Formats: sequence, structure tokens, C-alpha cells
Amino acid sequence: MACRHRSSTTTLARLAKPARLTPRLSTQPQLQSQVASAARCFSSSRPRQLKETRCQQGKFTSETYPELKRDPRYGQVTKEHVDYFKGLLGTESAVIDGVTNENATDDIEPFNSDWMRKYRGHCRLVLKPSSTEEVSKILKYCNDNKLAVVPQGGNTGLVGGSVPVFDEIVLNMGRMNNIIEFDEVSGILTVEAGAILEVVDQFLASKGYIFPLDLGAKGSCHIGGNLSTNAGGLRLLRYGSLHGTTLGIEAVLPDGTVVDDLCKLRKNNTGYDLKQLFIGSEGTIGVITKAVIQCPQRPKAQNVALFGLESYEAAQQAFREAKGHLSEILSAFELMDAGSQALVRQVTKKNSPLEGEYPFYCLIETSGSNSDHDGEKLQTFLEDVMEKGIVVDGTLAQDETQVKALWSWREGITEALGHLGGVYKYDVSIPLPEMYQLVEDTKARVEEAGLLGDTDEHPVRAVVGYGHMGDSNLHLNVSTRRFDERVEKVLEPFVYEWISKRQGSISAEHGLGLAKKKYIGYSRTPTMVGLMKQLKDLYDPNAILNPYKYI
Amino acid sequence: MACRHRSSTTTLARLAKPARLTPRLSTQPQLQSQVASAARCFSSSRPRQLKETRCQQGKFTSETYPELKRDPRYGQVTKEHVDYFKGLLGTESAVIDGVTNENATDDIEPFNSDWMRKYRGHCRLVLKPSSTEEVSKILKYCNDNKLAVVPQGGNTGLVGGSVPVFDEIVLNMGRMNNIIEFDEVSGILTVEAGAILEVVDQFLASKGYIFPLDLGAKGSCHIGGNLSTNAGGLRLLRYGSLHGTTLGIEAVLPDGTVVDDLCKLRKNNTGYDLKQLFIGSEGTIGVITKAVIQCPQRPKAQNVALFGLESYEAAQQAFREAKGHLSEILSAFELMDAGSQALVRQVTKKNSPLEGEYPFYCLIETSGSNSDHDGEKLQTFLEDVMEKGIVVDGTLAQDETQVKALWSWREGITEALGHLGGVYKYDVSIPLPEMYQLVEDTKARVEEAGLLGDTDEHPVRAVVGYGHMGDSNLHLNVSTRRFDERVEKVLEPFVYEWISKRQGSISAEHGLGLAKKKYIGYSRTPTMVGLMKQLKDLYDPNAILNPYKYI
Repeated sequence: MACRHRSSTTTLARLAKPARLTPRLSTQPQLQSQVASAARCFSSSRPRQLKETRCQQGKFTSETYPELKRDPRYGQVTKEHVDYFKGLLGTESAVIDGVTNENATDDIEPFNSDWMRKYRGHCRLVLKPSSTEEVSKILKYCNDNKLAVVPQGGNTGLVGGSVPVFDEIVLNMGRMNNIIEFDEVSGILTVEAGAILEVVDQFLASKGYIFPLDLGAKGSCHIGGNLSTNAGGLRLLRYGSLHGTTLGIEAVLPDGTVVDDLCKLRKNNTGYDLKQLFIGSEGTIGVITKAVIQCPQRPKAQNVALFGLESYEAAQQAFREAKGHLSEILSAFELMDAGSQALVRQVTKKNSPLEGEYPFYCLIETSGSNSDHDGEKLQTFLEDVMEKGIVVDGTLAQDETQVKALWSWREGITEALGHLGGVYKYDVSIPLPEMYQLVEDTKARVEEAGLLGDTDEHPVRAVVGYGHMGDSNLHLNVSTRRFDERVEKVLEPFVYEWISKRQGSISAEHGLGLAKKKYIGYSRTPTMVGLMKQLKDLYDPNAILNPYKYI
Repeated sequence: MACRHRSSTTTLARLAKPARLTPRLSTQPQLQSQVASAARCFSSSRPRQLKETRCQQGKFTSETYPELKRDPRYGQVTKEHVDYFKGLLGTESAVIDGVTNENATDDIEPFNSDWMRKYRGHCRLVLKPSSTEEVSKILKYCNDNKLAVVPQGGNTGLVGGSVPVFDEIVLNMGRMNNIIEFDEVSGILTVEAGAILEVVDQFLASKGYIFPLDLGAKGSCHIGGNLSTNAGGLRLLRYGSLHGTTLGIEAVLPDGTVVDDLCKLRKNNTGYDLKQLFIGSEGTIGVITKAVIQCPQRPKAQNVALFGLESYEAAQQAFREAKGHLSEILSAFELMDAGSQALVRQVTKKNSPLEGEYPFYCLIETSGSNSDHDGEKLQTFLEDVMEKGIVVDGTLAQDETQVKALWSWREGITEALGHLGGVYKYDVSIPLPEMYQLVEDTKARVEEAGLLGDTDEHPVRAVVGYGHMGDSNLHLNVSTRRFDERVEKVLEPFVYEWISKRQGSISAEHGLGLAKKKYIGYSRTPTMVGLMKQLKDLYDPNAILNPYKYI
């Protein structure tokens, strides 16, 4: 998609004197899913050369992590087990059997690997139940026979949480994809775990509602996966976390017990809120089968502005002003540094939507019920931050195409980085005042080590930062030309220690999975980790669910 | 406070033709806390005659519920124990000792009874720690010595959860009342559990923020109590539940372990979200000592409208329209039936703010950042519902006094009912389409039994309904002239069975406490109750925390 909208957008310099803006209805940018899709073969937290890895079969996780050994507690999957599952699930398509059928390997491969081709397991049996009862019987059988199981949604995760490491059985939820019920007065949705986020959101759009979560992988990810990873996404700032918007959950414990907490009420103070434990537990204590979600009204108006700033301090001031002026309609406040935008320009060959270059850029989105009111609020905000000198230059999208184009400068970063080679990616939360300092300190460290430069002898091309400023959620990305062990040594544990000192989180939204299992101590105390292990032991004493991961 | 604002408010009949409204800034109605305070001696779910019970010492809970027996597992509090606590807490005022000092009874009484004088325990020792370390040492000692403990916040609960039944030690959190930290950019607040909601909210007001919870008892209730009861309140519709707005919690387990989950980040996906278990667990698995709350911007504009409707169906339509028109600024949508408003008129001798009488009334509140915009949205909404015939008549508050006056027709119901005698109160959640039907069915049942009437031979004066329509939260109230066993038999278990059949909740926001412990089965399956008991056993194997209650 060409993005030559400089001539057709209104630069904010002109907005310093009040001018009537005419924002209009627009749907959400669909670009993100395209970006995610296009980026499938490039993104990785272990750097690789693009040409070598693009869409090739990945290495087995057991090779990448030779310290991981198959736990001998788990039984081997036999023909007898497969026969049981075939009898239980009935239809042939519900069981992909690589145990008795060696030709099934190709069919199993998509379930064995993640979309980044970073993790790859040795699974030989995929089960696709179509009901909670089937999930319950599968888990009970596996628990009785000590067969390890990996629950799998859309398999769009970034930390290796949804694919097997060894020969765990994959329990894929894709067939449980029904929208069960929707109340058009209350906005309360009941849905099966395997429903795809975008499909659900399109259904809700037809009813004037919106799913309270949006993220790049929406075209593939499942609601159950969103819940089990406590996905954050683009508009957490506006709609809050899934812990607040999830009213009910049905889940199955390893022993087959159905946790029937499918409450459809906004208020229900009758006992411990057990459902919360399944939100963010990455399939380690139970498998979510259904959920009840409180969905907000779909905004009728959406506006997007992009602007340039001279410092991170100015970005923080702009955020403060945005909260004051835009308050209830502010739905996204994203930060991008100069480095990240230079990489997007380099890869896309597009012109920047602003005339000059700035150390920082912010993207603001508003979502509300009245486009005139929202436009006025945004205009007042923009005039205010221009007058105060907080914002140096800016542009406001005039139509849906421009909304998408402006978003592409934020959402296109992942793709651009992927095109340029391997990337060390860190998805972290840090209290706002110090958030960007991590990028600067990391850059200085890599520079001091002589690893960063414009020429080919330097393994590191750039250290850039961007992310959901409204949520204090930074994506620190180190773009490399090739794999070099010195880079990893300079970065780790430095980055984790840096975050730990500021009481930040080493995983803001991606979760732990396999990738961050061993780093949890940087964000949680031994007491907390001990309490988590106690819960894991309580619900999954045989540890059959999603082994080798999480805690 | 006189409430003769009919002449000064604008009736909606005139609004059918567009008229410029000039809503203005107004603070939140403070009336609720006055109402709650005034109602202290009247409200009860077991009916009593006003004159007999007004501010008298209540009966002991052990007499009201003779089936409850002191659990012999618990040790008796001795002088030796008291000496330990005195040594630990240092200052004299931190220990109210009725064990070695018989004259301390009067000092202990406020901690032994709830504000309704409905529940009364036999506690002889009150401890007031000033730090998490002290809470930890107290609980560890009690656990080691099998001494039962009741954690107590502001003691404003409605279900007897915060007072002892027998000789449990009261652990009062009132001395841990510091506001620890507030970040003015992110709106993230760190506060001790014993801080009073209103004090915290006033502090936040000075910073341009608001606590995401508001309720009648705000002048007394503690943040820790709000969290441990998962308080809902007046603006859950707008700000969501505490499960979403609480970022971190510090709590102490019965064995003294400090759960240090005091996260100050909006996003942190590193392990099970254990803090959620303490929200709504009513002090049965741990004692909350500190909390981190995400606070929203304080709205700059607030508008309130009250209108009359011909049917419950119309009220539902109005709610649907309000969501569409007011969307992000809708902060309350309250329902009151004719009966409840007649009782308020009867007690207050005030004139209704509307000309005529209607079967139903709704109160709408908007909170936003721009009063002109909000006023326009509200006006468009009102014109729309008038034109469509959904709303028959209405009035819009023109200033802060009128805002309070309109709210008094909703918030004054509790007080009015209390003035008239005993009340059977049910705080329930029911899916919206059937919500009001419970009032009609209950009324018909009481009528059929010959118990309802205008004359003195009928024990029941009125069956009325009101509540937070925006949250599907109904308050069913049966106003009585005197205690009559036949009334209770007609109401229970009928009401609970009715709710159970509709998958409603027998406790929307008040919690279980002692009052609803035995009824949990109407809202939760045996599986869920079993899982809850399993968690209770895990964290509190000696069952020292808040015994005889919850599950």
C-alpha cells in the first residue's frame, strides 16, 4: 500500500490557529493483521539471517535448548491411547495421528511449530475436541495415563507457550469456535474458546459492539488463547484488562473437572473469583473452553494523529495533556523513537508523514460516540500542545486511508525490523518516567562494546524503542546484521537486571512460555514464585499440562 | 435538605423541541454518605420494629443463630497471648484488651458489632497493627496458637463479614491508613489497606483524579475492605470492577507469609495473577495490607437527569438508547419503581421532581471531560427517547444542588424504608430482561398469601424494587410493619430459587459474610464450592481467618 499522504493531510503547524476539523467515521485499521501475517517469518528474539530462515523448517526446541530433557514421568503415546481418542472424538478429522501413521508428519507440523519458526516440538498426536465434555474426557484420560498435553489456540504466541517441546499431545481448540449467545442490551457475549478474535469482533460489529481487545494477530488468535495469555494489545488503555472484562469462564482441570464459572453477570460476589486464575496462566492449570465477555459499545468515531517531539520528557508531557484533554475518548497513545521510524522509512521507501525528523514520535487515537465532539477535543488538545511547545509538528488523519497510513508507522516497525535481519526483542513494562532510559542505556552499552555501527563489521545495526506508552509498555528491539555471541552477552542479563531494579516487568504482555520461564525471578520474588508453584501442584499434581514452561 | 426544585428544573416535556441546555461542572453528590449514616439503625434483612431496635445494643449473633457453635479447635485468648501482642505492637492504643481488663468492654463494643446492630460478637481483644510486618507476626502467632481472627476494615458491611461471632480476635486495619505514593502521569496510586475511601478520593481530587469506586459508606469504609469484599458501588458501569483496576496487592497469609504482589504496572504477564484471589475473598484466606490502584482522570463535567416511564420494557429501551447516545460518558443508570418512590415521598414529604406518577423512574448520570459536549449528547438522547415515546416525562439537573436532589430520590430509598420499619433486603444480579420480574412475582406471592396491604392487619407494607440497572443489579426490598414468620416463609427460599433458575446471583455486591453463607448453593455449583473450599484449605489449613463465614 502506498503511503503518500503528506500532501493530503493537515500539518499541525497550520492548526495552531483554530481550524475546523472534520473527522469522520472510520473502522479500525486492518493493517495490523496484514503486518503480522507478512512478518511471520522474520520476527524472533534470537537473531537469524533473513535469507537463511525465511519460512524454513525451524530447529527442534530440544536442539536449541539442549539443557531441556524429556521428563520420564510422562507416558509414551501408544496405539492403544490413539484408539481411545479416536473412539472418543468420533470423526477422523478430530484426531491427527502420527503415532500409527508415519505419513501424518506434514499434517502435524503446523501444530508442532510456532509461526516464528523459533520453537518446534516432536508431537505425534493432535486432538481437536468439539465440546467441553470431550475436553474433560481427554484430560482425565491423559491425567490417568500421565500423558503430557499442550493446549493450543491460534498458535500466535511469541514465547513458545503453545507448541510442544517433546512428544506432548496437542489439544487444539479450533473446533470449539461457536458464538453461543449475545445480549444486545447488556453487551454480554458467551463464546467458545476456539473462536477467532477477528470473527468474533466482526460479529460484534454487526451488533454495534466491539471486543474489548485488539491485537495484530486477530485474524488467527483464539479468544481462549487471548484469555490464557492475558493478551493486552492496542486498546488496553481504553477498555482495561481481560481480568476486568471477563465475566465468566468455563475451564477443564487436568483431572477432567469442569470449572463451571460461566457467569453472565456484571456483579457476582459469591465466593472466590477462581476464573481469574485461568486468565494469564498459559494453559498450565486448566484448559479454557468457554468465556463470557462484557463488550463495550463500538465507537462511532475514530481519529488518529501523529506528531513529532524533541524529547522523551515532551512525550510524557504530551501524554499527560492527552489524558486531560481527551480523557474518556483516548484509546491509544503510542511512542516511536527516531531509530524505529528510520528503519520503517529504509524498508518501505515511504516518505515520513511529517516534514522534519524528530527524536520521538507519538501516535494518538481517539474513539468516541460523536465525531464532532471528538474532533473538537482533539483539535483543542493539539492546539494546546503546539502552543506550549510540547509538540513540534504533527498531522491528523482525514479519512480511513490516512488512519491506516498513520498507524502503519507504528504497526510497520515489526515488519521493517524483520526485513532487516535478526532482532533481539524485549517486551517490558517500566514505570513511565524511566521507560525510555532502557533504550538509551542499552544503546550506550552496545556502543561501548564496539558492536553498534553503520558498517558491516558491526553486528548491531540499531537499538530502537517503541510501544504502548499509555500502558508503560516498551518494546526494546536490537536489530542485528548477523548472530554474534557478544551481542547476547552484552544484552543479557543486563536488560533483565535493569528492569528488575526499576520494579518493571520482564514480560508486559507476551507471557512467559518457554522463552522467559527461567527469567521470572527478575520480576517476581521467590515467595511469589513459591506460591505459584503451590497452585500448579494443587491443580495439576501430575504436571501434565504444558510442561517445561511458565514456572 | 429541602428539595423543592420542581420550579427550577426543566421538565423534559419542553425538551421535545430542541432547547439549549447549559449543564455545568458539578462535584459528585455527597448525599449518599449522609444517607448511609442516617440509616445506620434501621436497615436490616431481618425485620424489626423501629422503636424497639433504634440504636439499641443488638442481640449476640450466637443467640440469633443458635445453630452456630464455637469451634473447639480454636484456642482461648489468654493473658500470655495478650502480653505477646502488647510487646509486639508497643503502644497501648494498638491493643484493646478485654481479656485482662474487664472495663474494656465499652471500648471493644464498636469492633464487636456491625453498624446495623444486626451482628454482635464476643470478642475480647482488638489489635491495631501499624505495619505489614506487625500483621505478619500477629497472624503467624495466631496460626501457631490456633487463635481465630477477624480482619476488619471500616466495618460498613451488610452481611456480618467484618465482626466476630464468638471470641475471635479483631484485627482492625485502621492504623495502616497512609497514602504511600501517587504518580500524577500514570494515575497509579499505592495506598495502605486502612485508608478511608473518601479521604483517598479527596486526595485524588486534588490531583485531578478519581478513585474508580464510589459508594454510600465512603466516609467510613477502608480501601482494604473495598477490595476484600470486591465492592461494586455506583459507577461500576463506568470504571469497571476492582478486578480490572487493581494492579497490585500486598497481603499476609495466615502463616505470616507476605504475598508481595505490589505491582505498579498496567501490564505484567509473569505468572498466575494471585492478587485476584484476595479481591472478594472477604478476609478468609489472607489480610490485604496494601494495594496499587489504577485511577482514572476525574471527570470535569457531570450531568444528572431523572425521568418517568410507563413500563419496565421502556426502561430497558431507555438503557439501550442511553448506551448508544452516551456511550463513553454514561456513568450511572439507576432504576426505581413507583413503590420505592412513593415510600420516599411518604417519609420525606417532598414533592416528586416530575409532574405525574409513573410505574418506573430512571436516573441517568454522565461524567466526561467537556460539559458542552456532554450536555449536547444528553440533550440528543433525551429528545430521542421523548420522541420515540420511550420516556414520558423527565427533568434535568441545572446545578449541583439539583444534582444532589435528583440523586436523593434514588439514594434516599434505603433511609425511607428504614424509617418505616423492618425490611427484608435482597441484593441480587439477574439478567436484565427478567430483572424486574422478581419484584412482580414476589409481590404477587406475598399478596396471594394475604400478607400485603395498606392496613395494619397486613404485616407487609410494600414490595419494591430499585437498583443499578446498568449492572443488572436489583435491590428487592420487602417493607414490613412488624416481624411475622409467615412473611419469611413466603420469601425464602422462594427468592433464592427464583434467582437460581435465572442463573442470577444471590449476592451482587454485598458478599456472603455470615448472612449468605448457607445460600451459596443457589448461585454456585457443588463443584465450584468444592474448589473454593480446596483453596481455603490450601491457604488457611487451620481455618483461623474469619471463621463461621463465607463458604
